[in-house]
Amino acid sequence: MTEATIGASAFDRDTAVIPRGEGVFDAELSAEWTIGHAVNGGYLLALLGRALGDTLPHPDPFTITAHYLTASRPGPATVRTSTVRTGRTLSTGTASLLQRDEEGREVERIRVLASYGDLAALPDDVRTSAKPPQLPPYEHCLGAEDGMDPAAVPPITRQLDLRLDPATAGWAVGAPGGRGEMRAWFGLADGRDPDPLALLLAVDALPPTAFELGLSGWVPTVELTVHVRCRPAPGPLRVSVTTRNLAGGFLEEDAEVWDGQDRLVAQSRQLARAPLG
Amino acid sequence: MTEATIGASAFDRDTAVIPRGEGVFDAELSAEWTIGHAVNGGYLLALLGRALGDTLPHPDPFTITAHYLTASRPGPATVRTSTVRTGRTLSTGTASLLQRDEEGREVERIRVLASYGDLAALPDDVRTSAKPPQLPPYEHCLGAEDGMDPAAVPPITRQLDLRLDPATAGWAVGAPGGRGEMRAWFGLADGRDPDPLALLLAVDALPPTAFELGLSGWVPTVELTVHVRCRPAPGPLRVSVTTRNLAGGFLEEDAEVWDGQDRLVAQSRQLARAPLG
Repeated sequence: MTEATIGASAFDRDTAVIPRGEGVFDAELSAEWTIGHAVNGGYLLALLGRALGDTLPHPDPFTITAHYLTASRPGPATVRTSTVRTGRTLSTGTASLLQRDEEGREVERIRVLASYGDLAALPDDVRTSAKPPQLPPYEHCLGAEDGMDPAAVPPITRQLDLRLDPATAGWAVGAPGGRGEMRAWFGLADGRDPDPLALLLAVDALPPTAFELGLSGWVPTVELTVHVRCRPAPGPLRVSVTTRNLAGGFLEEDAEVWDGQDRLVAQSRQLARAPLG
Repeated sequence: MTEATIGASAFDRDTAVIPRGEGVFDAELSAEWTIGHAVNGGYLLALLGRALGDTLPHPDPFTITAHYLTASRPGPATVRTSTVRTGRTLSTGTASLLQRDEEGREVERIRVLASYGDLAALPDDVRTSAKPPQLPPYEHCLGAEDGMDPAAVPPITRQLDLRLDPATAGWAVGAPGGRGEMRAWFGLADGRDPDPLALLLAVDALPPTAFELGLSGWVPTVELTVHVRCRPAPGPLRVSVTTRNLAGGFLEEDAEVWDGQDRLVAQSRQLARAPLG
């Protein structure tokens, strides 16, 4: 397979935003990043993150929060951005994703608040106590489509090169492990290397931890916050997602993303509605 | 000491917001919640959270994110709120804290994005795997003012009933433990019981974990997100704060707040600038 380069991949094409005026962008939500009727929340965050990067004077999302208001649908969308504050090392802005409903009324899908900086300008000091997730080698992990009826494979599965740790894939064969944990190798199927925008996708790309807790069904995200801490090295990433607090009909999912140089490049937490299953 | 009731405590008085019009509130940032020149970020978030609760149809912050833009000062302030979306179980809104600078220009201090719901309406199901922090009994923990020159005790210390686990207080005697962890009993000094707004204060009330990593100096918060998961039971709370990733001049602080019934009532994460010390 020929490797796609950053800027020339399906991910870049499908997260493209076209400026239409001051803080207004046209976008097309691609059906290639869906599961059932749902457009992946990480893909949508990457698209909004790209629009904010085009709006703010700093290039990289340091901390970005999205509140998912209504269900996005594949098709045309508008992104509106605004600058809250511009500082020397950080700038802050908001973004909204909007689509038209059946009656042609504009409906807000997602509201974002984020602070951007320049990852390349950060010092190299690292005093991280966190350890990378222990994952079997890539070739010993399971493709999301393994054992699935090819006709049943959701479109987003074909966009990702996701390899699940068998130890957290029991749910897939009807034997959930009972621990709220998922671990996987993550890459883009066309070989595009990861960058900060791809990290916004990576934190929301694994199957829900709720599956390993024996639950099934949708786990709609209410809010997702991602801290991008370092520009990832080329090559596959390791992602671990854990849930420690399932209560009151909600759960949190904490994700860590590690690059090939054993650096913790992103941390995220989302609040989601627990599935009823 | 007579116990203050919810609504009639120093915390309620100092986080009060007075409606001045549609989505506009007057507030007075109290000097009683400061350390040096800095107004505590959790206190400010509680004040903004109160204004959002007055604005939105749902009473409780389920997930609230604050970006700290410029340094707040004790004195008059304005809060502006806006409703993003109103749903059946959740509503989403924004809030801004504004103050006048020396030239009388309005400067934004904090921007907030939050989704509110009704904690009392949540089912009682709990499948939490997280365990409460192991803390010595309250009477065996250290008051923040223990061994301090009374004249040097910051004002906020007098507002809180904070008791640090001696195992995470080595920094206070010049012997930091080297682990990015803080644990403490948390209460309000006037005996007011905790509620969801007080949880927004509790997650940012402990000394910085960076102190136990041997660093000193300010640890300014860039962004703080709090998930309130349960209405806390009356009585003291247990708070644990951990840092796993100190790199590139930034660090994260993850806080968990547990109530007297061993329920994980709040989870938070903040991105902060690492002290230079």
